[in-house]
Amino acid sequence: MANDILIIHIKGLVQVRENQVSYVAGSAMANLPVLSDAYLYISDGRITDYGKMDQLPPLSADEVIDATGRFVFPSFVDSHTHLVFAATREEEFVMKIKGASYAEIAAKGGGILNSAKKLQQASEDELLEKTMERAHEIIRLGTGAVEIKSGYGLTVKDELKMLRVARKIGAQTPLTVKTTFLGAHAVPSGIKKADYLKQVIDEMIPAVAAEKLADYIDVFCEEGFFSMDETEQVVETGKKFGMKPRIHANQLHRSGGVQVGVKTNALSVDHLENIGNEEIQLLKGTHTMPTALPAAAFFLNLLFPPARKMIEEGLPLAIASDYNPGSSPTGNMQLMLSLACIKMKMTPEEAINAVTINTACALELSESLGSITRGKTANIFITQPIPSVAYIPYHIGNQVIEHVILKGRIVD
Amino acid sequence: MANDILIIHIKGLVQVRENQVSYVAGSAMANLPVLSDAYLYISDGRITDYGKMDQLPPLSADEVIDATGRFVFPSFVDSHTHLVFAATREEEFVMKIKGASYAEIAAKGGGILNSAKKLQQASEDELLEKTMERAHEIIRLGTGAVEIKSGYGLTVKDELKMLRVARKIGAQTPLTVKTTFLGAHAVPSGIKKADYLKQVIDEMIPAVAAEKLADYIDVFCEEGFFSMDETEQVVETGKKFGMKPRIHANQLHRSGGVQVGVKTNALSVDHLENIGNEEIQLLKGTHTMPTALPAAAFFLNLLFPPARKMIEEGLPLAIASDYNPGSSPTGNMQLMLSLACIKMKMTPEEAINAVTINTACALELSESLGSITRGKTANIFITQPIPSVAYIPYHIGNQVIEHVILKGRIVD
Repeated sequence: MANDILIIHIKGLVQVRENQVSYVAGSAMANLPVLSDAYLYISDGRITDYGKMDQLPPLSADEVIDATGRFVFPSFVDSHTHLVFAATREEEFVMKIKGASYAEIAAKGGGILNSAKKLQQASEDELLEKTMERAHEIIRLGTGAVEIKSGYGLTVKDELKMLRVARKIGAQTPLTVKTTFLGAHAVPSGIKKADYLKQVIDEMIPAVAAEKLADYIDVFCEEGFFSMDETEQVVETGKKFGMKPRIHANQLHRSGGVQVGVKTNALSVDHLENIGNEEIQLLKGTHTMPTALPAAAFFLNLLFPPARKMIEEGLPLAIASDYNPGSSPTGNMQLMLSLACIKMKMTPEEAINAVTINTACALELSESLGSITRGKTANIFITQPIPSVAYIPYHIGNQVIEHVILKGRIVD
Repeated sequence: MANDILIIHIKGLVQVRENQVSYVAGSAMANLPVLSDAYLYISDGRITDYGKMDQLPPLSADEVIDATGRFVFPSFVDSHTHLVFAATREEEFVMKIKGASYAEIAAKGGGILNSAKKLQQASEDELLEKTMERAHEIIRLGTGAVEIKSGYGLTVKDELKMLRVARKIGAQTPLTVKTTFLGAHAVPSGIKKADYLKQVIDEMIPAVAAEKLADYIDVFCEEGFFSMDETEQVVETGKKFGMKPRIHANQLHRSGGVQVGVKTNALSVDHLENIGNEEIQLLKGTHTMPTALPAAAFFLNLLFPPARKMIEEGLPLAIASDYNPGSSPTGNMQLMLSLACIKMKMTPEEAINAVTINTACALELSESLGSITRGKTANIFITQPIPSVAYIPYHIGNQVIEHVILKGRIVD
């Protein structure tokens, strides 16, 4: 494996930011800095130099890559996934096509509780093996850092099992992994919500904290799941144990999730299919990153979040995959770019900012990831020869990535 | 290269039809015959045998492929593309995102006339090189037969150039190619429509026929393009020169395209975003294949064709990619399956019938392609290990194909 990599004749070096930027918001999202005819130098896992080819200094490298006709991007940061699951749920997909309602699917054992049942039956090793396959799948698709939630365990033992698997993905792959405890994802059958919430608060959170398994805490704040008050109670307990909040907010209804997120100083509020002007105004000036999950909206045939309105109001916007077996069975961030452009009317530049620097910010990683900046971790991908940056979202359904470098090593 | 290939331990051999079937319609579309735990034997480019593994006869083969955990499908047949073009048009994609209307884009030199300008400037060799890349792209994505239209030339010379390139794709790749003359795609600037139509009829059709460059004739029957009468006039001329009709019908308006298609005994009417009950009733009992192009509807944010209504009324339905640089920049038939299921509420079985046997019928290829049937051409693909057929449309945005065999040879 090479320690020093020099990439030359890059058609466009994308998302070059000389100075540390935490995130971009509003009209600044339209600006995606691209250096044409460039070189990039990677040393000991970090981006140490870049510039125009005609100013290439004498640099020795173990490996030289000619990127003629190709773009180099910072790897995608996917700030919302449920990557650890035991089984896909395409049978429910078919039930939905045939017209079954959410309630009918749930009555037949579907939904989150279906995933919980299968996850409870799987051993930690089985779960790691299946998740590892998906980890390598998203690496090939350009993702370099990923948030992974629990929430299909729904017992102390199984929530810990999920989070241990998530931590192992971080230890055993070149992905940078952040973990989130989402015990309050659904109420298991055969137990009252109040009793389950007591378990989450009194048993699960302390157990997760004792093993240092979660960086963050999340709640599915939604009608029929957890109320604003319940959400606040869970995340405030999590905060006491060192887990910062991020909230599943406003997917199916105006659930108050944004309000709780802002009140508890959440790092992000995610979904936002159903937010109105009130929530948009509330988010202004906060440190809470609004995050759209367009594949879930696409897959469930929901309205998409009002991205244009949010950007025009000056908010930042992040975009993540929501990779999960029920409502978003994909971790393909190139598809997120297409959905952002086609369905949310974002420009390619805005969409690329949303899946790199803004998702990095949502995961508190923007000091080390999300842009091409000297000193940052060398997480990048090299495209196939393509005509332009806009070609990526435009050429829907097609893979444009040729090589992946994570932590300074060529991994694909 | 192997002459005889034996594939064993196939988890599911999909679209196995013992008897010749031209197409499937109505409720029969829900039936996708799958043989589990199967073998498939390919000899001299043809499917010569298949069956259950426990009945595997003694067969010698140059190559044996173990397909444990994998499905084997007949290759996709893509019955509507504009694969020959000189340049992508992502700059128009961005203009549309920013709110430009079709008319504004056209005023800035965009649209079909943009493609025409670039195609006219490209040499036949350049055009072949670019189209060849796309041909290999769709081969890797599982397509084995493809229809390719002219219509970006709009002069005698350039229409012939396009069709020669299309024929060369058929000669120089393992794809089975059918070609369609679409001179009446748009009216070039600086010429009256009546004069251009006269050129199409008096000059182009005879010239195309003289070189035997087109199997079919097509017209963009649409408000602002060509009327019902004009469409009929062009296709009737084409028929005299041996080109059977297929019609661009009802994309943006109820254009009468279906009526002309039925009247002229067209092989297919394609698009159908805007058809009503009248058109559906008219198609019953005809030999005209209704064809949906869901990627164009997706990309342009149009309503999707009423697939459920058509199927419930007993019609067959085919689905093609419409691969073109303006309104459907993708030839990924796996994406068409996802769009069919998610946006047109077709079951995976219906969708797979629509992209194999029904598109084969639309191209008069169902005697040799579109199903796993003894004697048919060995155009197949082998998936990665996947849990089910439904997993393919469900796992949106992901490539599931591991190996491609066309005309009995492993090509990818």
